[in-house]
Amino acid sequence: MASQVTFDGAPAPGTINFGVGQPSADLLPVELIRSAAEDFLAVAQPFEFNYGEIQGDLRFRDTLASFLSRAYGKTATADSLFLSAGNSQALDFVCGRFTQPGDTVFVEEPSYFLAFRIFSDHGLNMVGIPVDEHGMCMDRFEEELLRVRPRLVYTIPSFHNPAGLTLSGKRRRRLVELSREHGFLVAADEVYQLLYYDAPPPPAIGTLAEEGNVLSLGSFSKILAPGLRLGWIQTNAELMKTLLASGSLNSGGAFNHATSHIVRHAIDMGLQESHIVHLRKNYRGRVEVMDAVLRKHIGDLASWQKPQGGYFFWLEMADQVNTLALKTRAAEFRTGFQPGELFSSRGALQNCLRLS
Amino acid sequence: MASQVTFDGAPAPGTINFGVGQPSADLLPVELIRSAAEDFLAVAQPFEFNYGEIQGDLRFRDTLASFLSRAYGKTATADSLFLSAGNSQALDFVCGRFTQPGDTVFVEEPSYFLAFRIFSDHGLNMVGIPVDEHGMCMDRFEEELLRVRPRLVYTIPSFHNPAGLTLSGKRRRRLVELSREHGFLVAADEVYQLLYYDAPPPPAIGTLAEEGNVLSLGSFSKILAPGLRLGWIQTNAELMKTLLASGSLNSGGAFNHATSHIVRHAIDMGLQESHIVHLRKNYRGRVEVMDAVLRKHIGDLASWQKPQGGYFFWLEMADQVNTLALKTRAAEFRTGFQPGELFSSRGALQNCLRLS
Repeated sequence: MASQVTFDGAPAPGTINFGVGQPSADLLPVELIRSAAEDFLAVAQPFEFNYGEIQGDLRFRDTLASFLSRAYGKTATADSLFLSAGNSQALDFVCGRFTQPGDTVFVEEPSYFLAFRIFSDHGLNMVGIPVDEHGMCMDRFEEELLRVRPRLVYTIPSFHNPAGLTLSGKRRRRLVELSREHGFLVAADEVYQLLYYDAPPPPAIGTLAEEGNVLSLGSFSKILAPGLRLGWIQTNAELMKTLLASGSLNSGGAFNHATSHIVRHAIDMGLQESHIVHLRKNYRGRVEVMDAVLRKHIGDLASWQKPQGGYFFWLEMADQVNTLALKTRAAEFRTGFQPGELFSSRGALQNCLRLS
Repeated sequence: MASQVTFDGAPAPGTINFGVGQPSADLLPVELIRSAAEDFLAVAQPFEFNYGEIQGDLRFRDTLASFLSRAYGKTATADSLFLSAGNSQALDFVCGRFTQPGDTVFVEEPSYFLAFRIFSDHGLNMVGIPVDEHGMCMDRFEEELLRVRPRLVYTIPSFHNPAGLTLSGKRRRRLVELSREHGFLVAADEVYQLLYYDAPPPPAIGTLAEEGNVLSLGSFSKILAPGLRLGWIQTNAELMKTLLASGSLNSGGAFNHATSHIVRHAIDMGLQESHIVHLRKNYRGRVEVMDAVLRKHIGDLASWQKPQGGYFFWLEMADQVNTLALKTRAAEFRTGFQPGELFSSRGALQNCLRLS
């Protein structure tokens, strides 16, 4: 998902803004989208502009299933896939379909700050679970489970926003196992899953959809373009039923029908996959440069793990540093970042910051 | 908004289905959309595929404001307009932003049956207000106001779904006046406003946005194509603030950013307006034929008003007729319609039916 500049206001002109998690202009594939759109428009039929099948056009879901089968290394089926209008819409929709005000959601501490606002819109209580270098600490998670029963667990398993880290395969499986035992839902934000620089992370939680109460949220925002507002939810037959029973969906049809034809053509033409290869290579290079620059200039002031994929560096500074105050200083030097406090479900992490 | 065949299952092949409120294939302007999309793609810039301004791209809102100023005969401003992903999404969004489970919504009796499902998703209690030939009966409305305080009033002011009738100008103004006095919101589904056959209906409730708690829901579904999933909300500055504070929106940006560029080009090229002229002429002809056929064959069994715009004939039969049972008979003759009961907030109207 994105990180709009909502909390910032607009940065001063000329600012190099590491605060915003969106693709830079040179990585938005205008030519690719043009080709795919023209390929679709050349053969477009009236029904493709009418209300779409509520789960998403079957041809789109077939194409997406093939794409995910290749990308995740495990067969995905069209039946397990649901068309969303991007991960922010999908997360909001999942909360609407499955939660009631007053329910509890477990989140990683830190986690994506704008997801907090979605949970707050739905009146959910957040409980933060600490992370270590293998992602969410499952022992702490299980301790909390004894204390409170969550309706939802929100996780960003791969190349976490903001912490950059990745949940281990063992913990992924344990989390899904617990979802069945304790009757909670796992909403896995897998938007960075395919953006590894070298080696792939452990299999997407979407590949475990049959083994627990899994809603894997995937999106074309980070691998193609956010403005398309297109994504998917991978889940099991039982949870799919609840998604499909939505009044809004039954009234308006598939969430973004016409756009799904363009993306279907992009995948069928092989353009989506070659673009991901291009992104990986490009981000790998940028991360090396960023890491070297950080080491040179603030290597003695902060510690961090060099990310293996995704968008983010997460820097931890000395305990007494307040990165929110630092942000004002940085703005004077025309540099933007997001202070750690934003990403805390309880106002902590004041000595951390995120660079995009 | 649409009326998916959700409650029907798929009708038998060869059925003439008057049950579904969607444009027929020959009225879906594939060539128009192709031209507008190509016009956009020829000049597309990377930022147009990034996250969009949460209220909707300013150029789109400027173009839409000009379009509505011409269409509604009253100046609309870009500031008063918010980009939605169609009226179903907009109504769901409005419920999410403004209501709490247990709140009351006033609806017309009859009203659009899939709106009921959206209200039910949000845990709202519905109160049905009868209609006469001038739309919602305001005296009955004011009586109900003494009894219960609604959070929301949902109305389809022009060429009502399913009843085909139109709320008078006087009642529109009274409704908006009352919204301010009693602190409820008017969610006006104005999707058929521009689909008059001859004379325009009274001014859209959107033109009264500054005079009360008005959320006017407009859409390109019925005047262009449903699959685009694009619409707008016209409202005042105070309600706009609440719309813009949504977590989902701040995370994902404008609801359907890329598609809004295509529709902007369609309007700027004059294609949207000439298509509406084409639709009016076409529907006018179809309604004449339908009315003549109905008079010839069931003129003595049912009564109806010939619609002056929109999609629907609303037939009232003798009290003892049950149109739900009739539907099974009709299916044997490969004819589809929607029974009146669907459109009742309280299981009444069993002797009515809707033809699309």
